[in-house]
Amino acid sequence: MQVTLKNPGKFIVIEGLEGAGKSSAIALVRDFISQLTGREPVCTREPGGTPLAEKIRTLVKTTDASDPLCDEAECLLMYAARAQLVANVIKPALARGEWVLGDRHNLSSLAYQGGGRGLMPLVQTISAATLGDFKPQLTLYLDIPPALGMARAASRGELDRIEQQELDFFERARATYLSLAAADNTIVVIDASQPLPQVHRDIVSVLRQHLERS
Amino acid sequence: MQVTLKNPGKFIVIEGLEGAGKSSAIALVRDFISQLTGREPVCTREPGGTPLAEKIRTLVKTTDASDPLCDEAECLLMYAARAQLVANVIKPALARGEWVLGDRHNLSSLAYQGGGRGLMPLVQTISAATLGDFKPQLTLYLDIPPALGMARAASRGELDRIEQQELDFFERARATYLSLAAADNTIVVIDASQPLPQVHRDIVSVLRQHLERS
Repeated sequence: MQVTLKNPGKFIVIEGLEGAGKSSAIALVRDFISQLTGREPVCTREPGGTPLAEKIRTLVKTTDASDPLCDEAECLLMYAARAQLVANVIKPALARGEWVLGDRHNLSSLAYQGGGRGLMPLVQTISAATLGDFKPQLTLYLDIPPALGMARAASRGELDRIEQQELDFFERARATYLSLAAADNTIVVIDASQPLPQVHRDIVSVLRQHLERS
Repeated sequence: MQVTLKNPGKFIVIEGLEGAGKSSAIALVRDFISQLTGREPVCTREPGGTPLAEKIRTLVKTTDASDPLCDEAECLLMYAARAQLVANVIKPALARGEWVLGDRHNLSSLAYQGGGRGLMPLVQTISAATLGDFKPQLTLYLDIPPALGMARAASRGELDRIEQQELDFFERARATYLSLAAADNTIVVIDASQPLPQVHRDIVSVLRQHLERS
């Protein structure tokens, strides 16, 4: 495959609820980018991806009954980790001409904290104040009914603090993902409830379309 | 001394640059409140004051040359710690009718991150989005020329990441403290460059005035 790139460094993000199949999608997209560009993309995960951001990840993933994480603090911690990752990893990599492949990014905060927790005005305000107009060139949202995703995630082992939310929480997050995707042509919805080979064919098709038209 | 209180629980905050004499002022105000109300106030410090917020304090106080804390992440971490402290400690204490005595609060972020780092629009946005109209009933700002404060702080031992800023940074923070105090009659400036007994007389005088008129 030959694709001519105008801007060599791109930021591609994989999003989805727990159990949507993000890990195998990331492996696929990573291979695709490696073959396309001749080198591995810089891979990030959120929250996390820098030494400090990984410490913040531990804080938001941990339950402390004596000091339960309030919704506003959760949101601010997510954006602290993201600001650090964008400043110290993603922007420097893009500036060097490298590709960046993200396991979650800003859309997760909009879906989980904004839609799931009902904090959309706070999330939008902090997002605009900290990220400005910085965003991925392409986001693949792996869409799956929450009940199916949770069943898959539960089969992997113990669920963390966020994964232990009620199903309603994930229904609200999913509705937010779909609504934001409908309004933004850089967010493509992949039907992740299909058999895995078809999900992967859909992802490759989207990557080709996106890269060939950019 | 007899003072009739309409609202028993009040939130009083001590602010000031490093070396301004916050610790001895806090001890004084704590004793004043204890004598006035017959019980110790709940004492907080920022960033910190809950198990999670203390972990955040460690993150912002630590230097990691491989992953330097970006200004936006610093600001977001300060507000994450503050949101957690307000939700889990300060508001519950005030709701129980207790007094709260804070070693720093929101004014520190406005002065240090807003004035010192030049991030005032971001700080004001996040402050409004996370705290709304919640604020202390009284803030005592201990004013001191930064050079004098830094000399005092340095004599106490090693300076942390924020205390190692250039003098200009503290000059901007001081100017912001003074400007905000001039516009808000719940913030009282104390001349902390005076001899300690006079500083303490001034503090007690302000406390009496404030409590008698409230």
